[in-house]
Parts: sequence; structure tokens; C-alpha cells
Amino acid sequence: MINKNELKYIQSFAHKKHWAEESVFIIEGPKMMEELMASDWVIRQAYATKDWIQNQPFKPHYVTEVADFELDKISQLQKGNQVLALVEKKQVNEPLPLKGRMTLLLDGIQDPGNLGTIIRTADWFGLDQIVVSADTASCFNPKVVQSTMGSILRVQVVVADLPELIQSVRIPIYGAVLEGKSIQTIDLAKEGVLVIGNESRGIRQPLLSLITDPITIPRYGTAESLNAAVATGIILAKWQH
Amino acid sequence: MINKNELKYIQSFAHKKHWAEESVFIIEGPKMMEELMASDWVIRQAYATKDWIQNQPFKPHYVTEVADFELDKISQLQKGNQVLALVEKKQVNEPLPLKGRMTLLLDGIQDPGNLGTIIRTADWFGLDQIVVSADTASCFNPKVVQSTMGSILRVQVVVADLPELIQSVRIPIYGAVLEGKSIQTIDLAKEGVLVIGNESRGIRQPLLSLITDPITIPRYGTAESLNAAVATGIILAKWQH
Repeated sequence: MINKNELKYIQSFAHKKHWAEESVFIIEGPKMMEELMASDWVIRQAYATKDWIQNQPFKPHYVTEVADFELDKISQLQKGNQVLALVEKKQVNEPLPLKGRMTLLLDGIQDPGNLGTIIRTADWFGLDQIVVSADTASCFNPKVVQSTMGSILRVQVVVADLPELIQSVRIPIYGAVLEGKSIQTIDLAKEGVLVIGNESRGIRQPLLSLITDPITIPRYGTAESLNAAVATGIILAKWQH
Repeated sequence: MINKNELKYIQSFAHKKHWAEESVFIIEGPKMMEELMASDWVIRQAYATKDWIQNQPFKPHYVTEVADFELDKISQLQKGNQVLALVEKKQVNEPLPLKGRMTLLLDGIQDPGNLGTIIRTADWFGLDQIVVSADTASCFNPKVVQSTMGSILRVQVVVADLPELIQSVRIPIYGAVLEGKSIQTIDLAKEGVLVIGNESRGIRQPLLSLITDPITIPRYGTAESLNAAVATGIILAKWQH
């Protein structure tokens, strides 16, 4: 049973002003919940149906049982999916060192679905962090969280001033551009940074001039560009090869 | 100036019953319009703002000038974007021969954004047709059309019975599955078929048993799966290499 105040509070996560400012974010569905419970993220509160609870070895202390129609009311999805949790956001102020790893940098990715898919793709290819510009969509946007399919719990997403971050590092800075070296012929170093630009404007100055290795996915047809998440996936597949 | 009947007619394209049954589909924005006008697709009617018309060498006969607020009213986007056209659907009953080309087969792709992005990606890699199962999202869904970014005008999308289509062809049938040969080690033949399955169920029987070469994108991290459009992009990039 959920009370009126809780109901109102959770429903307000539909509005950006709310989800952006709150110290928790929403995760839904049994699959994501399972990954959440196995992680070090702190669950502040969860609402689950009887069915979900009966499938657990014991009822976790943070779970309130709700009826299906109650879950539907608080869900951000078209229909509730067994369980919804409020998870404490992690405060990450400092990116992990760029040296010794592959890091993805996102310069102004706007579409929440694209960002979520990029986080999921980075997770598939074993990257442990993504650094994003302040104007990139928020990783706590409910649409982003949902489209990461749980990867938000594993890939650290940090907001930083991208030009400042890379201006003095001595590793390759790859940038996905329309006229660069073909990723089919270039050897991508395992220690480096890959910059993906905004969906329509690409990588912006002054970041663009800090790219040491502009790279391109060869085109064989007539489309003007590739979707940002698809382009990221193709380059990461080549990078990890 | 647009009249009440036209207004009502175009607005009804927001509903599936309408866009699925009508003989025309909607394309929006100056970029897609430019590609449309350079193509062999038949434009039945278009509505454009004064600004758009003034940028043309002459006003095409099928264009009605409308005010910005009128375009906003008929647009499927959040806000009108200079021009909206009603384009006649092409009736394609027969796929192009599978021999001598690379063909993409989609088995039950549900998400309109995924389908649109897949069409755009296929266009980038030079494929001229995609054959889809009857339960795949419709390529004339306004969300699909928009996310193809114009590629819908160049890549032929045909609905067919997929098992029947491939059961007697003598070319490789690649299928993207979780446990197949790594695309990094296998040599993909330029004449062949690539099957991409549904977002959650993958490739279904009896299609699955017709796959001659199950292939996989190697995983380096912990995500359970890749987005269908991202996976398609990664395999097409390797196929065209």
C-alpha cells in the first residue's frame, strides 16, 4: 500500500525539474532490480507487487508491497513492471585517470535514447567510464536510465569540462568526424580517448582542435550521417578488436 | 492557407489506424524535402512556409503556402519545420533477388526508432533493400520515417515471409545471435543475408534453423545485450570492410 504523499512524490519524477534536483533516481523492472540489488548502489525505497516479492528469497527491508494498479500509477513506463526503486545518485566529481584505459567523451549528446544506448554499448565493450559535457542529456533522465538496460549501474558517467580535461594528456584523442582517417585502416591504441559529438553539430570548438586523430567510418551508400549511438558502437567494436 | 478538412485529415496521421491504411505517408523538414524532390517518389501534396518557398527556384505546383502556426498544427514534430509533404507509398510486392547482393532481414523489430535507425544505417553501408517480417514495425510509421533521416527514400523495405524467402537460396544466411562465431574472425561473404532478431526474443523459429552462419559481436564488458540498431551497424561495418 502506497500513501498519497509517496504517490505524488514519485509521480513528480515525470518532470525534469524534479528528477534533475532529487538525490535519487528511478529504476524499474525485475531485471534491472536484480542487477541493482547485486550492486553497491544504495536503494532508498522500493515498491513491488506481491508476485515480485514471492520470487525473492526474503522481503528486503526497503520494499513496500503495492497492488498492480498502484505500481501502474507510479511507473514511468506505459505499464508498471513488478518493481520500482528509488536509488541514491552517486556524487562523482572527478573522472578516473585517462591514462591506462579507454575513455568515451560525449560532447553535447541531446537525445536521451541515444545517451542510454551509448552507455549500454560502452558497457558491452568493457569501458568503465564516460565523461560528458555539461550540456549532454542527464544520465538520470528516466528515459536514459531505462534505455541503458542496467548499464547505468556499471559505467561511471561524469560531467566535466572536456577541453580542460584533455588539453594536457599525452595519449591519442580520437574524434569521430566526417572527414578523418578510416577506422578500417588506422590502428586504434588501447590507451586513449574517443570523442563523439552532438547529433547535428558534431564536435565543437575548442574541443575539436584538441583532437589528435580524427577518424571516420567509411561510407558505402548515400545516408548523410550515422546515428550517434550506432557510430559509437562501430568505433568501439573496432577499438576493442 | 490550409482548410479545415485538410487540417483534420493530416492531423489524423498521428493515429496508427490512419497512417497504416492511407496510401500516402508524411515527410517533414527542408532536408528530407530536398531529397524527396530529387527522388522518383510521387508527392501528392505539400504545405510550406513562405520562407521555404522563397528559397526554391520556383514554387512547385503541389505546394500550398501555410503560416507557421498552421504548419505547427499539422506537424507530427514538436514544432513544424518549414515544410510537410504527403508522399505516395510504393507498392513493392517482391524483394530484389538475394543473389549478388547483401540483404538485411528483420525478424520482428518492434521499436520504431530502432527500425528507422536501422534503415539509415543500411543506407550508409550501401544496402539497397531490407526485407522485414509482417510483425516488424511499419516503415511508414511517422516516427520511423523521421528517424531514417531520408534513407526511407533510398532503401527499399519489403514485407515478406522470411523463412519462405530464404529456405531454398544457396548463399550464406548470417544470423546475429549471442553464441555464434566472432565477427572479428569470420570472413563475411559479400553475397549473403544478415538476419537481425527481435529486441528481446532474438531470431525466432523456424527462421533460426535456416541460419547457416550464426555470428556474434564479442563482448568485453557486462551488458547483457546490444541495442538492435547498434548491433546491425557493427555487423554491417564489418561486412562492408
